[in-house]
Amino acid sequence: MRLTERAHAIVATRLRAGDWAIDATAGNGYDTCFLAEAVGPTGRVFAFDVQPTAIAATAQRLGALVERVTLIAAGHEAMARHVPTEAAGRIGAVLFNLGYLPGGDKDLITTAETTCRALDAASRLLAPAGIMSILVYRGHSGGSAEAHAVEQWLAARDVMWSRETFEPRAARDATPVLYVLRRPA
Amino acid sequence: MRLTERAHAIVATRLRAGDWAIDATAGNGYDTCFLAEAVGPTGRVFAFDVQPTAIAATAQRLGALVERVTLIAAGHEAMARHVPTEAAGRIGAVLFNLGYLPGGDKDLITTAETTCRALDAASRLLAPAGIMSILVYRGHSGGSAEAHAVEQWLAARDVMWSRETFEPRAARDATPVLYVLRRPA
Repeated sequence: MRLTERAHAIVATRLRAGDWAIDATAGNGYDTCFLAEAVGPTGRVFAFDVQPTAIAATAQRLGALVERVTLIAAGHEAMARHVPTEAAGRIGAVLFNLGYLPGGDKDLITTAETTCRALDAASRLLAPAGIMSILVYRGHSGGSAEAHAVEQWLAARDVMWSRETFEPRAARDATPVLYVLRRPA
Repeated sequence: MRLTERAHAIVATRLRAGDWAIDATAGNGYDTCFLAEAVGPTGRVFAFDVQPTAIAATAQRLGALVERVTLIAAGHEAMARHVPTEAAGRIGAVLFNLGYLPGGDKDLITTAETTCRALDAASRLLAPAGIMSILVYRGHSGGSAEAHAVEQWLAARDVMWSRETFEPRAARDATPVLYVLRRPA
């Protein structure tokens, strides 16, 4: 099972019809579509991307599902500013797919600093037992620094939060890794 | 004074620092920038456009002002779904600049039906004494039908709401017209 599929499978166990969710990195819209399906017609998804081409790609992939999604052109580190105040504590899941947009501008990567600000923001928006899924790619320039920052961020939460880590069997420094973090219920 | 400048001058008399405002048609971002300046660093602007190129152009024009703006990739008829519920009754001004995006896809015009849905939504979000500024261009295909629909929509509100109408001196069917509507205080 690919890590993206595994992330979806785990998040699907948490989300219920009518839930709210966040795609922190809309990219080409795969995760946004998955979340929009998972929360159903009465749910809501907030999807962020700093690149307008990603917003356009996500809108196109969503089709009619776009009705359930608020597509916001902003970096994920600004998510707290852009979601409604009533979102605090009622977000069932937040998905992060770090690194660069496939087919997009490779200079526009997520960075250690903005990613940690986004992780902070997301962790405060989560509902009890809410899930953060964080997929980190280490194969691009700047990727290993970001992965290291994410590991430190996670380590600081290991006392209270439960965490699962998934890596491909032949894990090397350049392979992706998936972290699934659960807020205490 | 151009009609866009007149709209800004009138809206500026209503907006105060910390207010919330909506740019229903972000386009190239001129109105969004004006609103972001008007509401100040503690205010918030929600800017809508269905075209990702318009979102990108608006983001670029805003520069650092983007911190005050939530840029949403959606048609203005969906604004009620995308603004926070706490926005209802606290929006100081909504700006509409109808017709097509200058330099954009001329087939992607606002239409009579979606525009009237957007006007309905905006009128319900306005604070007491809040202002709607509606600039209608009649020079493009579909423009006269839209202008007619807007006139009917306005006529239905003439009992309760105050309205000002501005037209260039040599008004013809193809010239723009500006309506400024004030919600009762």
